Amino acid sequence: MIRHTVSFSLKHPKGSPEEEEFLNATLILKDIPGVQHFERLIQTSKKNKYHYGLSMEFSDRKAYDHYNSHPIHTTFLQRYWIPWVADFLETDYEPFHQ
Amino acid sequence: MIRHTVSFSLKHPKGSPEEEEFLNATLILKDIPGVQHFERLIQTSKKNKYHYGLSMEFSDRKAYDHYNSHPIHTTFLQRYWIPWVADFLETDYEPFHQ
Repeated sequence: MIRHTVSFSLKHPKGSPEEEEFLNATLILKDIPGVQHFERLIQTSKKNKYHYGLSMEFSDRKAYDHYNSHPIHTTFLQRYWIPWVADFLETDYEPFHQ
Repeated sequence: MIRHTVSFSLKHPKGSPEEEEFLNATLILKDIPGVQHFERLIQTSKKNKYHYGLSMEFSDRKAYDHYNSHPIHTTFLQRYWIPWVADFLETDYEPFHQ
């Protein structure tokens, strides 16, 4: 399992129509085959500068690679992510097996 | 629901006895009442400088506050976290409800 998450902030302010449009637009990523447990999140720690989060899980690296190169994903990046996101940090978690 | 996560790196190298001791020591945090879905994770994104992650969930802010001030947590911070962690980033996620 790979849990792919990204913390981010938008160029548009909280409560703006663009915030709503962006967060709604992320939902299309759920349609990419292999995406599991898709979540839209609000980042609330005061020790962290980002305002939002997305989280999804893939069963393996192949499914993750398929997501990354899928046209739905690449179109979303061009239309929304690149122009509207001010800053972000990607984090990928895999289970620790001792 | 609050998902409290922390990405971190250790002062000791991967594969060292201290890495094993530290990651084992984190398991005691599961014993604090209110801690749900505790996970030890490996951070694998090359776009992120941290090596490990811990994730846990609380039903509400009261349970989170209880965890933060619990003697098991504060003892872990003094014994392991503060002396052994090189760098970290805390991220708290709450569900986005539109």
